[in-house]
Amino acid sequence: MAKDLIVLDPFPRTVEAVFDTQQFARLEGLGEIVRIDSRNDPASLDAVIDRAVAIIGQPDLAEERLRRAGKLRTVINIEGNFFPNVDYDHCFQAGVSVLSIAPAFAYPVAEMAIGLALDLARGITSADASVRTGGEVYGSRGNAHAGLITRSTIGIIGFGSIGRAIRRLLTGFSVKILVHDPWLPAGAIREEGCEPVALEELLSRCDTVFVSAAVTSENQHLLDRTTLELMRPDAALVLVGRAGIADFDVLLDMADKGRLRIATDVFPTEPIPADDPIRRSKILLSPHRAGGMRAALSTAAEMILDDLALILAGLPPVRLLQARRETVGKMRSKPASYR
Amino acid sequence: MAKDLIVLDPFPRTVEAVFDTQQFARLEGLGEIVRIDSRNDPASLDAVIDRAVAIIGQPDLAEERLRRAGKLRTVINIEGNFFPNVDYDHCFQAGVSVLSIAPAFAYPVAEMAIGLALDLARGITSADASVRTGGEVYGSRGNAHAGLITRSTIGIIGFGSIGRAIRRLLTGFSVKILVHDPWLPAGAIREEGCEPVALEELLSRCDTVFVSAAVTSENQHLLDRTTLELMRPDAALVLVGRAGIADFDVLLDMADKGRLRIATDVFPTEPIPADDPIRRSKILLSPHRAGGMRAALSTAAEMILDDLALILAGLPPVRLLQARRETVGKMRSKPASYR
Amino acid sequence: MAKDLIVLDPFPRTVEAVFDTQQFARLEGLGEIVRIDSRNDPASLDAVIDRAVAIIGQPDLAEERLRRAGKLRTVINIEGNFFPNVDYDHCFQAGVSVLSIAPAFAYPVAEMAIGLALDLARGITSADASVRTGGEVYGSRGNAHAGLITRSTIGIIGFGSIGRAIRRLLTGFSVKILVHDPWLPAGAIREEGCEPVALEELLSRCDTVFVSAAVTSENQHLLDRTTLELMRPDAALVLVGRAGIADFDVLLDMADKGRLRIATDVFPTEPIPADDPIRRSKILLSPHRAGGMRAALSTAAEMILDDLALILAGLPPVRLLQARRETVGKMRSKPASYR
Amino acid sequence: MAKDLIVLDPFPRTVEAVFDTQQFARLEGLGEIVRIDSRNDPASLDAVIDRAVAIIGQPDLAEERLRRAGKLRTVINIEGNFFPNVDYDHCFQAGVSVLSIAPAFAYPVAEMAIGLALDLARGITSADASVRTGGEVYGSRGNAHAGLITRSTIGIIGFGSIGRAIRRLLTGFSVKILVHDPWLPAGAIREEGCEPVALEELLSRCDTVFVSAAVTSENQHLLDRTTLELMRPDAALVLVGRAGIADFDVLLDMADKGRLRIATDVFPTEPIPADDPIRRSKILLSPHRAGGMRAALSTAAEMILDDLALILAGLPPVRLLQARRETVGKMRSKPASYR
Repeated sequence: MAKDLIVLDPFPRTVEAVFDTQQFARLEGLGEIVRIDSRNDPASLDAVIDRAVAIIGQPDLAEERLRRAGKLRTVINIEGNFFPNVDYDHCFQAGVSVLSIAPAFAYPVAEMAIGLALDLARGITSADASVRTGGEVYGSRGNAHAGLITRSTIGIIGFGSIGRAIRRLLTGFSVKILVHDPWLPAGAIREEGCEPVALEELLSRCDTVFVSAAVTSENQHLLDRTTLELMRPDAALVLVGRAGIADFDVLLDMADKGRLRIATDVFPTEPIPADDPIRRSKILLSPHRAGGMRAALSTAAEMILDDLALILAGLPPVRLLQARRETVGKMRSKPASYR
Repeated sequence: MAKDLIVLDPFPRTVEAVFDTQQFARLEGLGEIVRIDSRNDPASLDAVIDRAVAIIGQPDLAEERLRRAGKLRTVINIEGNFFPNVDYDHCFQAGVSVLSIAPAFAYPVAEMAIGLALDLARGITSADASVRTGGEVYGSRGNAHAGLITRSTIGIIGFGSIGRAIRRLLTGFSVKILVHDPWLPAGAIREEGCEPVALEELLSRCDTVFVSAAVTSENQHLLDRTTLELMRPDAALVLVGRAGIADFDVLLDMADKGRLRIATDVFPTEPIPADDPIRRSKILLSPHRAGGMRAALSTAAEMILDDLALILAGLPPVRLLQARRETVGKMRSKPASYR
Repeated sequence: MAKDLIVLDPFPRTVEAVFDTQQFARLEGLGEIVRIDSRNDPASLDAVIDRAVAIIGQPDLAEERLRRAGKLRTVINIEGNFFPNVDYDHCFQAGVSVLSIAPAFAYPVAEMAIGLALDLARGITSADASVRTGGEVYGSRGNAHAGLITRSTIGIIGFGSIGRAIRRLLTGFSVKILVHDPWLPAGAIREEGCEPVALEELLSRCDTVFVSAAVTSENQHLLDRTTLELMRPDAALVLVGRAGIADFDVLLDMADKGRLRIATDVFPTEPIPADDPIRRSKILLSPHRAGGMRAALSTAAEMILDDLALILAGLPPVRLLQARRETVGKMRSKPASYR
Repeated sequence: MAKDLIVLDPFPRTVEAVFDTQQFARLEGLGEIVRIDSRNDPASLDAVIDRAVAIIGQPDLAEERLRRAGKLRTVINIEGNFFPNVDYDHCFQAGVSVLSIAPAFAYPVAEMAIGLALDLARGITSADASVRTGGEVYGSRGNAHAGLITRSTIGIIGFGSIGRAIRRLLTGFSVKILVHDPWLPAGAIREEGCEPVALEELLSRCDTVFVSAAVTSENQHLLDRTTLELMRPDAALVLVGRAGIADFDVLLDMADKGRLRIATDVFPTEPIPADDPIRRSKILLSPHRAGGMRAALSTAAEMILDDLALILAGLPPVRLLQARRETVGKMRSKPASYR
């Protein structure tokens, strides 16, 4: 009798990039593994779909294919976003858990966000450059624009796993945290010790604003000139979600005029065009490196193994992000630069 | 009858750099103020010393002068270090509290230390430069050396107000913290949730090491090649105390060879000589800007006002650093670049 | 055209016990309300089921009835446990969220658990009685068995909302926390700063053990003589989940012999039989009062309103406990004393 | 040549009650030990005073005796309070550190305070009694007066080591903490995340008030009818400092009338007189057991050893409480029941 299978279809990642030797051994302990590449060889998936209990990857899973996947209990997206190439309704009805490794990126991204905010607050990058060119200014004379995070007011736009990780990392900083998240009721935000506010209030009250919202059908260019003008003079803005939420022409203008201090890890077009003026702007620039790092993928592999073991034991997954019927259709992420 | 006086002798700072209008008004509420400059006009201090109940500044206070200061109850150093131009023994015997604003710099310095550590962990400064020159590498491919602070092992050398502030700021990072401080017993370090260790153990176990020790007669070049070689490959070292604790020739060599990642806010000679090779090194360079900033002086002014009010009310000061009989003689700080 | 309805069927609670005036007004703002009592008048539910978008209560919802509930999007159990009188499979397939107010009891129960543990540690209840009868013993002579929670090792059996609340309340106590929860992978427990262990290890290492597990088909009499004998001499055991997890005859025997210190908020039979020897035992007795209190129901009402508003806006609920396909069938709770 | 001595004069404690075998061995490693009982044999102290570098105990140390103690560097009071039988001025001038083990009692007392507060909030003691007499009331019906500490407003009167320990233990309870301490400036209280307020404001705003102030010449009967009437109806008051701060006749009256919920670990006369009506009152009674316990003395011994080692090495003590010139004369504690 044919065995149940765990199907590995990791494109554009590789199995080796996700699982180290020890983790892969643990994976093999959970069931029979088959490795395929459905992107380049769609038939490879069709050949095993009826025996698959789990698929790790982000293959096309239209209804027709899913109808043949009678044993399937979970699809684990390892790109980090839910794409529209899966018939989610079918999965919800059939009790197939569709999961994503997105939470594994929460602390990596949040640490980068804090690092960028401290750089904006203290001018670390520009001061280092000044010493190299011999124009450094010492002590308080160089600190005219420097500020503290401690005891300041912080805004977080988008309170998913990244936003919550930012909040947690800031525990020791004695900050007041305002949160704007239209998918969360006030009480859920207060439970985390934060103050729920409307976007406008958040922008106008905060010293530093972190943007960690996913791009959805509802928040394109939420940060345009009108809303950004609400920010306090010299306030700091750190973008670590998707770029689409902000109008970058406005960001560029406001940073260069000294109206705002801005750092971003995301860009409207990646790679950044060679002649994009942002390369010469006053924005602190991070080439989409907040999440994709070895430590994140190692955490992701652990989360996959943990949840897969639970599912195969008839228990609900608890570590990965579970696609929810109500929101999965609102996501507008395109495959990113495969962090 | 001549009134008791609060003497302001702030050189090399200015009264205005320390006290804002509101704070100065509060100071005036505490007593009669006289402003002098004993550095340039020693007689100005002698003219009022017998009526002084408090001196704010760091004037020369040899025994002879102190013997005439019969009403003096406190000397508040606003430079940040205790200098040898005061007869501390006389002060201790006479019940004169000698205080310093050093604690006001704790969070400013600690935030800079965390910012430098995150920069070393993620390459923020070098990545920004790479985008400007068009050579950026995106995502995980650019993150080969990136690491997380979260769940890592942190070392703190010197557990005074700066070291403790670093510990507190890291509360949300779920780190294990090892502390080396020869002036503290193990129990005092454990009380703060840290593990007391010898210097060698600290260096060999930690992913990131913060050096926030004061320079004393005992710790000159504590970090030389022998001790630094104990550090783990690619470990990070962040210097925010006085430079004298480390051998900078060795730091330069180890950073440039990729043996360690290093950031420093302090330098053996400040300003850094124009031709100092450190300007072209791989060390992340901060021109002594960790502490001296408006927010720190504002906190200092508040601490001065608070403690002065307590002392004048016959209560012990609680906010500033109090010189202690046993250690004040071991300090080897020279007047710094007046942060 | 008939309007969509929010059906209130709260038996054995009352609407007024759950919603205060202001909360009820907010509820009315979410839709048209109809109040029924399906327990005493089943037809009252059938009369409105086809127009119900939400049912607040725990009525019988067999498949037949649910098939007629075409507009139904959520069933919100306000008793606190998922009972077997609902066809959960049908709900999962139809996309009906089945929710419970259980999380509203987490902090009330956890605070009681900490209170009972401190009482066991310090003998508060027995010392108070001793003063009333004139036999009190003062100071350290009365504290021969007293211990501290601070820096001790704590065990939590069952790491749901109550167990997590206990962990959070203990944040300031510098404790080491061991967790046993067979439904959670090690990584999920470590993420909360706790150490995942097997039941036997937990019992043998901890100074104080909190039992906050739900009663399932799998954990009946998990704490029997064999496992309880693993506990350290004079260790403390606090029961705040369901009673079925422990063999109470053994608890009674071990408490009375001074082998363990025990407190319980739950009992095998409630009300406790008049002649139950537990009434005269050394066990600290709390008559099932850990969860049911005004503050808990107020929180529950807020959670209901928050999640109902989200669901009606097409968003996923985030505050109440959501029944999960994999585990809802394992629950063995009977309706309790309607806290 | 005669050796320097560490003099143990622990009456009314005993050496064995403070130091366990291992700790005593560590003590012997610090110097030559001589054990005396100056209370019953004053000459025993005079015989060694000239060679004593440290005295552990609370002997009479008038100026005459101290003048002969030329090698003395520290006096370590192990009773827990500074008594007036020491010439403190002489000690300050001579550079003798006078220390107390009071901080060792901070967490024991603070845990008891939290335990008493949770008992008042939930009626643990009275509910246990009700089950024993068969009159228990279950669930919410028994919880009419029950409240939560979580998210409530807490007052702390007296912000020394006990008050600070209470604050720290409450870290996980998401409370707002108001502090009244006339010896501390507002900024020092804010630094700990608390709000400094006047006594009247504290009493009128808080749900639970902890009194952990020392008795001084200034705060006798601070809590009289006028101030206590400011408290909210049904608010809770927990006394763990010295009894003299409150008018117990008023406490008794307000507790018995149901005006306030009150718990106390201290009493105006100890032992409590046999016919004191407080024995039959509604006050929750703890016979002065908050501090004196094995764990506290073990911590005290560690603190003594740590600080003694520092002092003998020429470093300042850091763990014990150091008598301060300004306040030691204001203390009004009498020797207590030797916790």
